[in-house]
Amino acid sequence: MALFKKVGIVGVGLIGGSLALAIKKYKVAQEVIGIVRRKKTVKEALRQKIVDIASRDLRLLKDVDLVILATPVSTIKEIAPSVSKIVKKDCILTDVGSTKKEIVLKLEKLFHNYIGSHPLAGSQNAGLNFADADIFKSSLCIITPTRKTPPEVIRKITVFWNKIGAKVSLISPSLHDKILSYTSHLPHLVAFALMELIPSNYLNYSATGLRDTTRIALSSPELWRDIFISNRKEILTSLREFGNKLYTLEKLLSQRDVKSLYLFLKKAQRKRSKLL
Amino acid sequence: MALFKKVGIVGVGLIGGSLALAIKKYKVAQEVIGIVRRKKTVKEALRQKIVDIASRDLRLLKDVDLVILATPVSTIKEIAPSVSKIVKKDCILTDVGSTKKEIVLKLEKLFHNYIGSHPLAGSQNAGLNFADADIFKSSLCIITPTRKTPPEVIRKITVFWNKIGAKVSLISPSLHDKILSYTSHLPHLVAFALMELIPSNYLNYSATGLRDTTRIALSSPELWRDIFISNRKEILTSLREFGNKLYTLEKLLSQRDVKSLYLFLKKAQRKRSKLL
Repeated sequence: MALFKKVGIVGVGLIGGSLALAIKKYKVAQEVIGIVRRKKTVKEALRQKIVDIASRDLRLLKDVDLVILATPVSTIKEIAPSVSKIVKKDCILTDVGSTKKEIVLKLEKLFHNYIGSHPLAGSQNAGLNFADADIFKSSLCIITPTRKTPPEVIRKITVFWNKIGAKVSLISPSLHDKILSYTSHLPHLVAFALMELIPSNYLNYSATGLRDTTRIALSSPELWRDIFISNRKEILTSLREFGNKLYTLEKLLSQRDVKSLYLFLKKAQRKRSKLL
Repeated sequence: MALFKKVGIVGVGLIGGSLALAIKKYKVAQEVIGIVRRKKTVKEALRQKIVDIASRDLRLLKDVDLVILATPVSTIKEIAPSVSKIVKKDCILTDVGSTKKEIVLKLEKLFHNYIGSHPLAGSQNAGLNFADADIFKSSLCIITPTRKTPPEVIRKITVFWNKIGAKVSLISPSLHDKILSYTSHLPHLVAFALMELIPSNYLNYSATGLRDTTRIALSSPELWRDIFISNRKEILTSLREFGNKLYTLEKLLSQRDVKSLYLFLKKAQRKRSKLL
């Protein structure tokens, strides 16, 4: 038996579209309804058979068992109140935003059966055309229960992510935002800053190193502006600490401190080699 | 007819070994002699048929037509005087160091027929076992002639790199070091600094973004310590400019300046999209 009867996905882009495909492929629900903003996406989502029903009308969510908000972070916060007026009382709700504290604080006031999710999957690409049922395979999904989250919601959402291939880790919303500020938000900020800095006419003189390091600067500016603003407190902390590391390197170079420089690089390389 | 009769390669690691294989594959020389530091590498280079002759004795370079110094940057400077006492007067000499100003300054005093090279190829991997005849295919090699470089040396070294698949760009040693401080050295420094900063217990909560951004932090600390020290003046400049960009981002986040933040990210993304 399917875990859910009807699932509604709000926002059918890279993640929302991939979720829709995965839900169908792994038979997690009988029916998937996609709510999108643009007329064009309604057509495209149906043409590519990504969802069973596509519409711009939120009211189609009135009898679904699970709603997944898969829009950019700022839209999740904006759209949640309208969704809360439509869904059934026992409907389970989650979102896939890359920041959690702000979203969870707002959404758990609106929904009884809410839990935040953050699948660590996806890429720099955006949009429906990159949707793929298997992007969650072998990935990690962080879910962020609080004291208010009903145990049954934790259980069902865990099973949901497992069924489409993701391992699940439970972390509080604040710790999630702290950790991700280091492992994802800061690296994105750094990649954008590197690209902003490097003179365009120098770019021909680069190799795979620069390309890999700045691949994530291809990510959507809208999406990442939202993430940076939403998690700005934690990011400001990790950014300042990163500035201190750069200052250390600056001192080591100015002072020609070959030995300490080597130890700094060696420590970083050793840590990186643990990251497969 | 082969471009050279005998070629000597000092340092048979990733780049030196790949050069040896490419020279044989594309018949650029009749014979390749590899000079290495360790006994083990002599055996390994011969067993893997990477060179025709492998030895720890520099005197084997006495009758070669081209010497390529393919050791780390600091070793290039250390070993050059000994090489200059051995080679024929008309022997052409180049090196593949990632920094050029310091090396060119020293080496063109020692050799009449010297020109600096910097193939923008390779990877984070080091050593003979990663050698591959085709890493130069479709890559760019910067060569750095000065007023002292004989035109015939420029011509022959250009043909040499072309024959093994690389396009060649002529740039002065100082401009090379300035450009590469932005497109290669700073990104490496940043990747090492990111890894040094991120707490080890956070690393499990990361995705491909962090992995790509910090892949180059897997690079050899010895090699990169040398490069950073050799080009420290230019790197200190680009590092300070990068610090200013981060400071700009810090201000935009603190002030919640959503619009300017978006424009910053958009500019970076647009520039990155030109980098294929």
